[in-house]
Amino acid sequence: MENHLNLTMLADFYELTMSNGYFKQGKQNEIGYFDMFFRKIPEDGGFSVMCGVEQLCEYMKNIRFTDSDIEFLRSKNMFAEEFLDYLKNFEFCCDVWAVPEGTPIFPHEPIVVVKGPLIQAQFLETMLLLTVNHQSLIATKASRIVRAADGRKVFEFGSRRAQGAYGAIYGARAAYIGGCDGTACTICEKMFGIPAVGTMAHSWIQAFDSEYEAFKAYAKNYPDNCVLLIDTYNVLKSGIVNAVKVFKEVLLPMGKRPKGVRIDSGDITYLSKKVREILDKEGFSDCQIMASNSLDEYIIRDTLMQGAKIDSFGVGERLITSKSEPVFGGVYKLVALEKDGKILPKIKKSENVAKITTPGFKMLYRLFSNETGKAIADVITLHDEQIDDTKDYVIFDPEYTWKKKIISDFKAQKLLVKIFENGKCIYQPKPLCEIRDYCKQQTDTLWDEVKRFENPHKYYVDLSKPLWEIKNKLLEEN
Amino acid sequence: MENHLNLTMLADFYELTMSNGYFKQGKQNEIGYFDMFFRKIPEDGGFSVMCGVEQLCEYMKNIRFTDSDIEFLRSKNMFAEEFLDYLKNFEFCCDVWAVPEGTPIFPHEPIVVVKGPLIQAQFLETMLLLTVNHQSLIATKASRIVRAADGRKVFEFGSRRAQGAYGAIYGARAAYIGGCDGTACTICEKMFGIPAVGTMAHSWIQAFDSEYEAFKAYAKNYPDNCVLLIDTYNVLKSGIVNAVKVFKEVLLPMGKRPKGVRIDSGDITYLSKKVREILDKEGFSDCQIMASNSLDEYIIRDTLMQGAKIDSFGVGERLITSKSEPVFGGVYKLVALEKDGKILPKIKKSENVAKITTPGFKMLYRLFSNETGKAIADVITLHDEQIDDTKDYVIFDPEYTWKKKIISDFKAQKLLVKIFENGKCIYQPKPLCEIRDYCKQQTDTLWDEVKRFENPHKYYVDLSKPLWEIKNKLLEEN
Repeated sequence: MENHLNLTMLADFYELTMSNGYFKQGKQNEIGYFDMFFRKIPEDGGFSVMCGVEQLCEYMKNIRFTDSDIEFLRSKNMFAEEFLDYLKNFEFCCDVWAVPEGTPIFPHEPIVVVKGPLIQAQFLETMLLLTVNHQSLIATKASRIVRAADGRKVFEFGSRRAQGAYGAIYGARAAYIGGCDGTACTICEKMFGIPAVGTMAHSWIQAFDSEYEAFKAYAKNYPDNCVLLIDTYNVLKSGIVNAVKVFKEVLLPMGKRPKGVRIDSGDITYLSKKVREILDKEGFSDCQIMASNSLDEYIIRDTLMQGAKIDSFGVGERLITSKSEPVFGGVYKLVALEKDGKILPKIKKSENVAKITTPGFKMLYRLFSNETGKAIADVITLHDEQIDDTKDYVIFDPEYTWKKKIISDFKAQKLLVKIFENGKCIYQPKPLCEIRDYCKQQTDTLWDEVKRFENPHKYYVDLSKPLWEIKNKLLEEN
Repeated sequence: MENHLNLTMLADFYELTMSNGYFKQGKQNEIGYFDMFFRKIPEDGGFSVMCGVEQLCEYMKNIRFTDSDIEFLRSKNMFAEEFLDYLKNFEFCCDVWAVPEGTPIFPHEPIVVVKGPLIQAQFLETMLLLTVNHQSLIATKASRIVRAADGRKVFEFGSRRAQGAYGAIYGARAAYIGGCDGTACTICEKMFGIPAVGTMAHSWIQAFDSEYEAFKAYAKNYPDNCVLLIDTYNVLKSGIVNAVKVFKEVLLPMGKRPKGVRIDSGDITYLSKKVREILDKEGFSDCQIMASNSLDEYIIRDTLMQGAKIDSFGVGERLITSKSEPVFGGVYKLVALEKDGKILPKIKKSENVAKITTPGFKMLYRLFSNETGKAIADVITLHDEQIDDTKDYVIFDPEYTWKKKIISDFKAQKLLVKIFENGKCIYQPKPLCEIRDYCKQQTDTLWDEVKRFENPHKYYVDLSKPLWEIKNKLLEEN
């Protein structure tokens, strides 16, 4: 992006009070380990989609406190001058690992791991969570909608209802990674190469003396991209009639074919069937039907089950805000501290068992069956632990440990990839379409049972034996 | 803001295809009138809060197509060179009116009105809607939460779960206008002067050998701002015990008083009562109790009804995303065209009566009772129509026209204020705290019946007789 707003100060104020406190306690060089993980898949789905890593890297590359930032902080009369000096000369030196964008992810897995001076690793929290939470939310929602559309195209149409400009821009990015085919948002094609589509609003029709005149003007101007919006007055009595007339009068003589019609209101199931009949009868069986208007995965699935004749969907507010569940609840927790060169795992206990953290500096593996190519289970291990996939491997349920499964003939893949080393970005940005392809391919490694919307099968996320033992010991301890 | 991302290209692609089309049809100088309005108050509340006007002005002031924008558009092979020239030399010349930020607003009212060349007025649609929709959504939600807190302080804590960085920043701005007392987000104090607050996360506690050590370190470093987070291990057995100990050992000898304790998990109603008892017994009746953890207006109301002893609330994801209804459905519709110097009202009909637009170039009035100071009704009129408040005025229901009411002894206030004149911004930015005060004061002009959460009284929004006649004539016509 050309003109980045400096987002360094987009941090919860307590990151700064804590950092200053660590500094004054002489803890500024103490090394801490933090995990980002989430506890619940939106809408009780079977998996989420990791997204936002590239923007997280951009953020971490650009942390810098300007003079006016320092001045502002000084005016609060809470921060030590040495701390402000430290911020002024801030040199990021953390190591960071993240699960690649487009990867299916599951609750309780470390999806971002940060190792570095407490004071720095702590400071990242707000923007790290914001970035990954937002984009993973939208990519997950998009994946659901695209799967409901069952091979038909899905376009993201939600900018006008997005929560702020970045909600629109990075939401469209995440939606594309999650499987959308394009967006209505022009800047997203310029920035990311996401195909931007769109033809006309109702106001175009209203700006002419008649629907027929409006269609004719459009067809003449855009003979190669003629998608007409046919619901301004009445789809069957007026819209499709005028569209067919204009296709014949304007496009055919130019040797052009119509690209489509769009229905944005009414009973799109019924209307699409009737419109399909008319188009076919009139010799336009190649003319596609696009539907929009408050769609989501549930409405799309229903309308297709009822035999709607729709070739593509424009999905707006319910995608760009993930309306049915607009929060991705990723959290960022301290999991270990280095003392005298040794890593001390840290646990946060809770009355609420689901809120107990998994301690330690960790790695995440996904085990794939060599026979089917399908993902069998994820295993969280100690960071340096190796899973030897030339031998059988036993996984077990971390709660009901007698539930065991022997995995044979599998491939173990590390899912956490280093993106920053000693503060330097080593992440290689990829073309968005590659990330999108990777997402599709990785989603295909999940069994259908994990992908269904209602009561999906719970994918295994287990702890390795060494990690389980550490966690258990800490739980028993105090 | 120092480094604006140029958001000119954050426009639905169809704005560009339409604009190019208008251009090629010779309609580029035809004057159009557009209204922004919304159809439904989030969560079936009694009113919404207008917000986002200042950022809308910023956007309109900064519309400019860079060379690379033009190059990008040219590469689409859809746009006339003369049109690209027009964009390159774009000179905004619209007149724009908006309801001031912080004003209670109601469905079907024009809250933004744009008059200008079709090609320009159309182009604004995406960013105009995005900006006002987003901030009005959050201001409305904040107003609900603040009213539930019934005089207690409410702080916005949601950045980490916001939908993108602008969602966090402008969400915090809108939340403040809606009545919040501050934010956790540091950059918002620097940018807007919204008080940023925060002390410690659980990680601070974990980073020390014990909770007691962690509290002690904090109290020593921040004796004037000592709010301790007491739920890391166990609120009653450990957190409050250590807090009291540290208050006595560290703060009192320094002549300082504790500011508060924060509870972020568990049954905050029960815990707050117990903690209050202990604090009072130990001589810290001035120490405040703050609660956070997935709060919203419903939980706050419930917990207060059950006698919770909470002095302030930190509200995160459910505020910053307006989780229970994350979309504000404002729309932008063509309502009139100028032909030969005459304004021709335009209507969009629909099978769905609620989707029929109100045609014409309009003004919005609010009528206040001189006796009570309360708002009686809003009246939508023709733009130049005057409501003479020295005489009685008859309002009537636009649907059931026999429902009439004579208004006497009232003051009529125009709610649409001109913010752009011939493309020049004439809006005077106000300090945020002034907008917040204005919002509170305007909200106070609404009857309690309009403000309640369940089945609020429907505030009157009527059409003036001349406007009603125009609408009715157009409805009868075709």
